[in-house]
Amino acid sequence: MTVEYDGANYFGWQLQKGQITVQQVIEEALKILYKTPIRIVASGRTDAGVHARNQVVHFDVPAADPFRLKRALNGLLPRDVVIKHCVRAESNFHARFSALSRSYSYTIATNPTALERHYAWSVYFALNLTLMQRAAEVIGRQTDFQAFCKVRSDVKHYECRIFESRWITRQERLVYYIRANRFLHGMVRAIVGTLIEVGRGKLTLKEMLQIIEKKDRRLLPATAPARGLVLEHVYYD
Amino acid sequence: MTVEYDGANYFGWQLQKGQITVQQVIEEALKILYKTPIRIVASGRTDAGVHARNQVVHFDVPAADPFRLKRALNGLLPRDVVIKHCVRAESNFHARFSALSRSYSYTIATNPTALERHYAWSVYFALNLTLMQRAAEVIGRQTDFQAFCKVRSDVKHYECRIFESRWITRQERLVYYIRANRFLHGMVRAIVGTLIEVGRGKLTLKEMLQIIEKKDRRLLPATAPARGLVLEHVYYD
Repeated sequence: MTVEYDGANYFGWQLQKGQITVQQVIEEALKILYKTPIRIVASGRTDAGVHARNQVVHFDVPAADPFRLKRALNGLLPRDVVIKHCVRAESNFHARFSALSRSYSYTIATNPTALERHYAWSVYFALNLTLMQRAAEVIGRQTDFQAFCKVRSDVKHYECRIFESRWITRQERLVYYIRANRFLHGMVRAIVGTLIEVGRGKLTLKEMLQIIEKKDRRLLPATAPARGLVLEHVYYD
Repeated sequence: MTVEYDGANYFGWQLQKGQITVQQVIEEALKILYKTPIRIVASGRTDAGVHARNQVVHFDVPAADPFRLKRALNGLLPRDVVIKHCVRAESNFHARFSALSRSYSYTIATNPTALERHYAWSVYFALNLTLMQRAAEVIGRQTDFQAFCKVRSDVKHYECRIFESRWITRQERLVYYIRANRFLHGMVRAIVGTLIEVGRGKLTLKEMLQIIEKKDRRLLPATAPARGLVLEHVYYD
């Protein structure tokens, strides 16, 4: 299934005791339909407050009409979580392990905005877009992202292959777009926080590279807030 | 000033006893700054729940630095009302009477959406876009819009010159765009409600024309909900 959600009211994707998560509300809806607990697997987690336009999940259920299942789920789900597409997958499909890459967008509003306030980080100081674009290209050439990974992550390695890393401008919005084979915990928001510091002249490209080489996130500037971040697409073969 | 607002939490633009309106919160902010009541004039009203991307207002105050005024107001206003631009106007400028035309957009989501649920009308039945486009062209050729005007409006005449009336498709969105010299009360939402009935095959183009000729809104299908409607631009000389 492809799932779109507004992360504002959720404590992220993954099930968590005492917190409402997106995974939980979808599993609860499935349990109502199938009268038995059904575990769903997503392409990856998203943090508290982060949105998704096309999160992909898989699960195993008895044969069902995908269109009717989608409709039934949307009837049960809260309005900030919607099933966009539902199809029968190959039996060896795995939402997480079959994924070849994921893309995220991060939206910066360079002027105050009322209509997009839930989905953008408002940054009013002057930004040098040329420098930010150059910094985004530098990010695209890196392979070790330990400096951008939350300290307590229990990953085996910090290697990521970046396929795209660039800024797109749309009127008074700057949208950072990044696609990679994998993302570490908190990575995109740490990158965006860093690129913004470069754009406002508080960090040079050289200093950014030094932080990356030292692999120490504690040297990084503040991370960007969750509300600007959207998991856009998950790519499969 | 150019003002963007999310209309969801307001009882429309215009001051109204016992209700919170956009005009009221801006006038309250101005009163705090100037320590005296200041009346503002908008290009036109918007109804409860309707949004604006570029509403234009004027008011008379002692000379002030427009940039600082904008910043001070944004510091006082709630996050769903923002001042986008503030400039010193010619003394004969009038936000309403100097306006030559206004444009509105109305967004239809043809698939469920979580991220745009506050700004779109979700319409899931099959729509014939070709018919809707033809109906929009027919609307563009009309001059008397009494059939699309709320019954208790106290306007002197129902003539509107339409400069643009068309559907634009963007992925799973249909956006109706209309620009005219003036709009009657409830007019755009009544038009959109009608175009959707044409699109789903419940109303023929001929029947639509008959309703327009009869000038009786009570014959019209249901009006479209407020949340999809945005006042986009106001055009001056």
